[in-house]
Amino acid sequence: MNPTDLKIAVVGSGAVGCYYGGLLAHAGCDVRFLMRADLATVQERGLTIHTHGETVEVPKVAAFGTTAEIGPVDIVLIAVKTTTNGALDELVPPLLGEKTALLTLQNGLGNEEFLATRWGEERVMGGLCFVCLNRTAPGVIDHFDAGSISIGEFHRPVSDRVREIVAAFARAGIESRAVENLVTERWRKLLWNIPFNGLSIAAHGATVADVLADDGLRKVARELMDEALDAARRLGHEIPDAFADHQIDRSYAMKRYKPSSMIDWQEGRPVEVEAIWGEPWRQGAGVGASMPRLEMLYHLLRRITA
Amino acid sequence: MNPTDLKIAVVGSGAVGCYYGGLLAHAGCDVRFLMRADLATVQERGLTIHTHGETVEVPKVAAFGTTAEIGPVDIVLIAVKTTTNGALDELVPPLLGEKTALLTLQNGLGNEEFLATRWGEERVMGGLCFVCLNRTAPGVIDHFDAGSISIGEFHRPVSDRVREIVAAFARAGIESRAVENLVTERWRKLLWNIPFNGLSIAAHGATVADVLADDGLRKVARELMDEALDAARRLGHEIPDAFADHQIDRSYAMKRYKPSSMIDWQEGRPVEVEAIWGEPWRQGAGVGASMPRLEMLYHLLRRITA
Repeated sequence: MNPTDLKIAVVGSGAVGCYYGGLLAHAGCDVRFLMRADLATVQERGLTIHTHGETVEVPKVAAFGTTAEIGPVDIVLIAVKTTTNGALDELVPPLLGEKTALLTLQNGLGNEEFLATRWGEERVMGGLCFVCLNRTAPGVIDHFDAGSISIGEFHRPVSDRVREIVAAFARAGIESRAVENLVTERWRKLLWNIPFNGLSIAAHGATVADVLADDGLRKVARELMDEALDAARRLGHEIPDAFADHQIDRSYAMKRYKPSSMIDWQEGRPVEVEAIWGEPWRQGAGVGASMPRLEMLYHLLRRITA
Repeated sequence: MNPTDLKIAVVGSGAVGCYYGGLLAHAGCDVRFLMRADLATVQERGLTIHTHGETVEVPKVAAFGTTAEIGPVDIVLIAVKTTTNGALDELVPPLLGEKTALLTLQNGLGNEEFLATRWGEERVMGGLCFVCLNRTAPGVIDHFDAGSISIGEFHRPVSDRVREIVAAFARAGIESRAVENLVTERWRKLLWNIPFNGLSIAAHGATVADVLADDGLRKVARELMDEALDAARRLGHEIPDAFADHQIDRSYAMKRYKPSSMIDWQEGRPVEVEAIWGEPWRQGAGVGASMPRLEMLYHLLRRITA
């Protein structure tokens, strides 16, 4: 299938949904956005993406207020906050044709399982976004850094549809790759998110630089990584120690970067506590991993963000 | 010596110093207070202690702006916040006669050592206050609950001077007792303070009831107790498991009580992080105790209260 023939729905039109969906639309794909608060503005003015000093304008955007208006598509990009996964029960069914794929771009663990339980494992794919984005106004996205996306099937090897979607992203100028073991990739990403997103909130607003500059917190961050590493390995994911070292080393370049969860918390938005801390802790504990720091961090974050 | 013949200086005239010093003065002891901000008010109006629906007025109070004006005494009650221990280097020497005892009523670990290093171990005694107090205005103390005090020598058995001071406190209506092993008592008190004072801040304002009502935080509280218990035992202090159970059980009666550290933090005052968390963690780690939760809590609190 030609990438531009793919019919794509974007459910969850926050920064991630608008950025990836907007670039795909800009590249000529048939992208249909479900929108709520921003619907009228985007129907009138389209999407604007500020990236690397340039501005990408997507003047004509197919934005709808319900998924019934969108109807069945080839791929659903799921980009709602994991804290509102419950809403998918109503949003997804109108989008489903016989072969519709559900591609979750959400954070953390448990999202593929959520979709598989409801609409069948064979539909489910996942993507990991390595990107720094901010929605600064209705339909306006600021892109700060990175942007690559790793896409894989859920518990299956890379398929033709993965390669098609990777090609569509690549054609839209997005660095993308197919991954054989999606869940291993999720754990690799969590190795950074668990300590840095978590401590940023638990320490009441600590940037990456703040954590690294504090000998005690830096040690705790690395120990949280080791706990996650042990859990991931017990669950069958091969991740070398050197990867954890590298996660610390590469973080120095981020300087005063605020992890996305810290921004959510500071701005009063829900924090994805279950997907990033709760589910990894439960899965690790389920296979006998000792995770005292993650357990304490999770319970603190639940309370802090309640 | 007749209790009323004891010449007592109170250094640190916050809630603890004014409450215990005020009751001793009310009972006829010669008590001299070092005061700063409240000096003029207390010289004019004395001290007022609201307790159990009654009001104790101490109209004439010997309050001074310097310890040089107070001069040598028999006992110095040390009640400054541990975060300002450095100021004692200048405050204590004018109060010292040949046999002057230094009785620290401060929280946590390390205060007796601080005094012993500077003025000799033989002078040093410690007292543990089990009391809920609040200074509501200059010279005005609200007493909410409890009030008992446990007094002992530092690394020595109970002495005549301990018995004298216990008698003086008893005569002032304060439930007091002599303890053989002061440092063991400090660890017993820390078993409660480490989890409940610590989680109250780390969870961004959680009362005792909040911690107990959250299955996860209650479990973490008990695990923090177990870490402290292991450290205390390795340091030679015999504390039974049943004591830790009892600390959880008795806490239910405290309901929405705010630990003192939480109030300090919420009101922007220094929190005694080193005395309550740092020193126990260092001492425990020094004898090989595994304290991952306490270590993480300590580093979070250092950052949060910085």
